[in-house]
Amino acid sequence: MGRKLIYLALVHYPVLNRHGELIASAITNLDIHDIARLARTYELSAYYLVTPLPDQQVLARRLVDHWLEGAGGGINPDRREAMGLIRIAGDIEKVRSEINLETGRSVLVYAATARKWPNSIDWPGLRKKIEDQGRDSVLLLFGTASGFDNSVLESVDGVISPIEGNREYNHLPARGAVAITLDRLLGDRN
Amino acid sequence: MGRKLIYLALVHYPVLNRHGELIASAITNLDIHDIARLARTYELSAYYLVTPLPDQQVLARRLVDHWLEGAGGGINPDRREAMGLIRIAGDIEKVRSEINLETGRSVLVYAATARKWPNSIDWPGLRKKIEDQGRDSVLLLFGTASGFDNSVLESVDGVISPIEGNREYNHLPARGAVAITLDRLLGDRN
Repeated sequence: MGRKLIYLALVHYPVLNRHGELIASAITNLDIHDIARLARTYELSAYYLVTPLPDQQVLARRLVDHWLEGAGGGINPDRREAMGLIRIAGDIEKVRSEINLETGRSVLVYAATARKWPNSIDWPGLRKKIEDQGRDSVLLLFGTASGFDNSVLESVDGVISPIEGNREYNHLPARGAVAITLDRLLGDRN
Repeated sequence: MGRKLIYLALVHYPVLNRHGELIASAITNLDIHDIARLARTYELSAYYLVTPLPDQQVLARRLVDHWLEGAGGGINPDRREAMGLIRIAGDIEKVRSEINLETGRSVLVYAATARKWPNSIDWPGLRKKIEDQGRDSVLLLFGTASGFDNSVLESVDGVISPIEGNREYNHLPARGAVAITLDRLLGDRN
């Protein structure tokens, strides 16, 4: 078993707003930072910000470069280390092909959702898949706003079961869902 | 076994800054919101914001009331429900005595830290303690800034093992640490 190659993408399109309408959401500085620190903690290979909007890509690049090349990284080298994992891409397909090219493996794509979805993968099952990972790499997709458009969930290799799907309240922040997901799949159990 | 009574406190004093100096940190709107949503998801009894500074207590009260009584809660009732768990207290001792009074039980206090600490409690051990919870209630303490002053860790019933303490990078956001801790202790394992 070689080194695990786990990638994460935070997706800003195609997602839904709270009325169920298809939108491209705005990037948020906080999700960039928090999820970069989580990605670094759990030793992911890269963290993709996915947005098709050119001005949002430029903004994301500037926010990241402040930490990689500008004043931020000098003050806080730990943050620079985390921000160095970030890549920017226009769509999910681009992320998939870039990972395939980089790893020489076929990437398996799993999407997180707060919704019930038929034949979703349970947590122990997905953890085992990742632990047994042989020639594949894994890409975990997280949606922003009110979550993925169905087209995403229909096109991936698997949809991950909701976090705490049997509880009454179901409104975790995306960065909280990322923290819990990475810990459930990759965390130390002792 | 009765209903589990689990409380959480986010502590702004006594904590350390990055130079190891004792400070009172500022409350942040984001930690209020994110941790309230996590507390509601995992069905905690209350979420305490702990700060001795009167102006910070007033500010916290205003931020919370915007959602409980002001415009915010009408637009987003789910957020109002989460924010309703928040209480404000001047110090940890006040939190402890308020919980004892409310529950009629003796509260056991556990502190989270990113540091190694002698005789810290491992995760399965603390999870089991909570699952077996009989006549006690439990208070989980989280520090802001660069974490608790030693005086806190020395005075609690137990210090929780660091999250991913065997990994190289150790800089989780507090709200990420709260998410992972609640999930490890109270989350569904399937």
